[in-house]
Amino acid sequence: MPATVPSSAQPGPAQPHTQPNSQQQIRRHNLTRVLNAVAVHEGTASRASVATHIGLTRAAVSTLVDELLRAELLVELGPGRPGGVGRPGSALALTARGPCGIGAEIGVDRLTVCAVDLSGRVRVRAEQCSDNRGSDPRAVLRRLSELLWEAAEQAEEAGLRAAGVAIAVPGLVDRGSGTVVRAPNLGWPAVAPATELTVPLPVTLDNEANYGALAELWLGHSQVPSDFVHVSAEIGIGGAVVLDGRLLRGVRGFAGELGHVPVRPSGRECPCGGRGCLEQYAGEGALLRGAGLPYPSDDDPIALLAERAAEGHRTTRRALREAGTALGIALSGAVNLLDPGAVSLGGALARLGSWLLPPLEAELAARCTAPEGPPQVLLSSAGDDGPVLGAAHSVVRVVRADPLAYAPATLSSLPARR
Amino acid sequence: MPATVPSSAQPGPAQPHTQPNSQQQIRRHNLTRVLNAVAVHEGTASRASVATHIGLTRAAVSTLVDELLRAELLVELGPGRPGGVGRPGSALALTARGPCGIGAEIGVDRLTVCAVDLSGRVRVRAEQCSDNRGSDPRAVLRRLSELLWEAAEQAEEAGLRAAGVAIAVPGLVDRGSGTVVRAPNLGWPAVAPATELTVPLPVTLDNEANYGALAELWLGHSQVPSDFVHVSAEIGIGGAVVLDGRLLRGVRGFAGELGHVPVRPSGRECPCGGRGCLEQYAGEGALLRGAGLPYPSDDDPIALLAERAAEGHRTTRRALREAGTALGIALSGAVNLLDPGAVSLGGALARLGSWLLPPLEAELAARCTAPEGPPQVLLSSAGDDGPVLGAAHSVVRVVRADPLAYAPATLSSLPARR
Repeated sequence: MPATVPSSAQPGPAQPHTQPNSQQQIRRHNLTRVLNAVAVHEGTASRASVATHIGLTRAAVSTLVDELLRAELLVELGPGRPGGVGRPGSALALTARGPCGIGAEIGVDRLTVCAVDLSGRVRVRAEQCSDNRGSDPRAVLRRLSELLWEAAEQAEEAGLRAAGVAIAVPGLVDRGSGTVVRAPNLGWPAVAPATELTVPLPVTLDNEANYGALAELWLGHSQVPSDFVHVSAEIGIGGAVVLDGRLLRGVRGFAGELGHVPVRPSGRECPCGGRGCLEQYAGEGALLRGAGLPYPSDDDPIALLAERAAEGHRTTRRALREAGTALGIALSGAVNLLDPGAVSLGGALARLGSWLLPPLEAELAARCTAPEGPPQVLLSSAGDDGPVLGAAHSVVRVVRADPLAYAPATLSSLPARR
Repeated sequence: MPATVPSSAQPGPAQPHTQPNSQQQIRRHNLTRVLNAVAVHEGTASRASVATHIGLTRAAVSTLVDELLRAELLVELGPGRPGGVGRPGSALALTARGPCGIGAEIGVDRLTVCAVDLSGRVRVRAEQCSDNRGSDPRAVLRRLSELLWEAAEQAEEAGLRAAGVAIAVPGLVDRGSGTVVRAPNLGWPAVAPATELTVPLPVTLDNEANYGALAELWLGHSQVPSDFVHVSAEIGIGGAVVLDGRLLRGVRGFAGELGHVPVRPSGRECPCGGRGCLEQYAGEGALLRGAGLPYPSDDDPIALLAERAAEGHRTTRRALREAGTALGIALSGAVNLLDPGAVSLGGALARLGSWLLPPLEAELAARCTAPEGPPQVLLSSAGDDGPVLGAAHSVVRVVRADPLAYAPATLSSLPARR
């Protein structure tokens, strides 16, 4: 049986906040610290440097390192001089084999999966165009199962064993029950993907913008600080709020719904039931319609918009200006309310950043009350892959938070595919 | 010299989050726990019941209680039967003398001060009408000094000694330097009130909505949960966000500026530099102008609005409906972003709640994306006094977090008034 992702484990800083009590807890805690110190200082880590970084004795660290080597979570790269001084130590690294995290994204017009290893390197990636608007969730999840099997098998061929699957969806998620409770852009009824997937791995689920924000935080694509508002601008507009390095969940788990902040309160009707929501002015559909282009579109509509804007196409430029303005209005409210350290713009629309940013920043400058002016707006370089990367990394983070739970004894091969 | 409020102490839960280390720290920590257990169970607290509540032995609690009695922070009410069973114990209570907190509010049209004792009872309260719009801060702070001296002297006559002053202001506050950095409704330049006040007490400063929110949290006027958005609707519209029982400060300390969330993005100009901010549609000035009443007004304009609305005055009712709608639009954005457990409406406009709530709740119902619908909107019964009460309580909270720092030896009488 594959290892189980503890249901209480939530993506977040790898080091637990509470102090461990028993001897056994202290050992597990220290194993986690050693593993994460090697991860952070990969390439230069040795027993001695890890001991310095985490403040344990060299002897204690050696014992812990040996345990992680036996568990096949660390590898020795052979004698080197990682610290640059003293007796040559043996350079340590996270294994390129062993546990991996599988991420998936159910987008409105594609399915994406990837597998990342313990260091966070992407080892497998696959993508399938799929018009999921108004689709039958079971049919989509069947296709996703195929992709997940293929990714897990490819990972296994590379010596990796999937520790779990995390799925990003464009909608409201009840994480407790693993249910997509509302996904207007898919037109799905409430559905629990894990019950439909055939891949024998534990499944966790979250909103795509939440995973996108975690990718920014963990992977440093846009150098976000620990407090920021993330916008995931695609067909829908998702949002996430990160405070002190952790996702703000809200009391019912639905925080971050920036796409339904009113920007033109008497404006266009929105499928959410409101009027004038940001999504109606800055989502992909609004942009394409505003630019006089067909929607939905078979081509890469973002590339088309960028091309037309570059050529000076007036209605395209106006549509981009209006979308940037709408984003700026919604973000001004969010910034005045939260006083974040930055705003990050991810998702497909990040590729249109050079057109969206000037009107967006003009709104922020005019509307933000803080005397120092508005915070910086950062463009994510993860682009469309932010959510799937955040999802895959969230599985790896859980492994790194309690590595022994994922040692070889608890990870098994995939059974024969049905 | 009067006791100093530790600058690192921030209003919040009285029990420290971190575990104490040294013997001395453990003793202080346990004194705090005993004092707060008596505070929470006042009327029924005995040594035995406190021991049960905090999980220490009866003997240990007795020693700690004796120390708090000697420090004149607790009093014995004489033999009673507080628990109702067993040998009659001696009922314990917080002293009605000893340390008190002085709160003040610099409003746009009044100054208010109050003193609350260790139990949180208001023992002194004074208010002065004062048109502070476009005023000279020094003149206002001179008048406030007078009021503060009088309050401290009255408190002293009642056997109370002021541990500090906390001042609520309608503007952005840099708490680190104790500076009001922006207060558009006062028209003040940047000013540090502590440098102008003549009262020899430590001064802390915060935005009025922050203190108003803390009053809701601590005093239970409106039964708020630990996660809520607070609106302080007066001449300006202030806001505060409480997450997990603590104020959200933001990276620069300016979080909560709900009054400048855009609700009519192309609408009225706002002194903040933006357009269509909530304050321009739901502040007292907007309401009075909308109702065709003079602004500023010498009378109690809220009472006048309530009277006219009750009489069926059409323009007044329309103005209230528009203000409620504007509040609903701004709060929909905040609720979709934060997913709070409740919204609380405080400040002077809470008195108009019966007129404001229907349009406000209609907007929330139409615009909030969570499947269960929007959170409850609670009306504060603290009304106009929320901020000054929250300010005074914040001083008492600091005392209760480390009571021995405020024992008689460290509290001295006021010097002769200059």
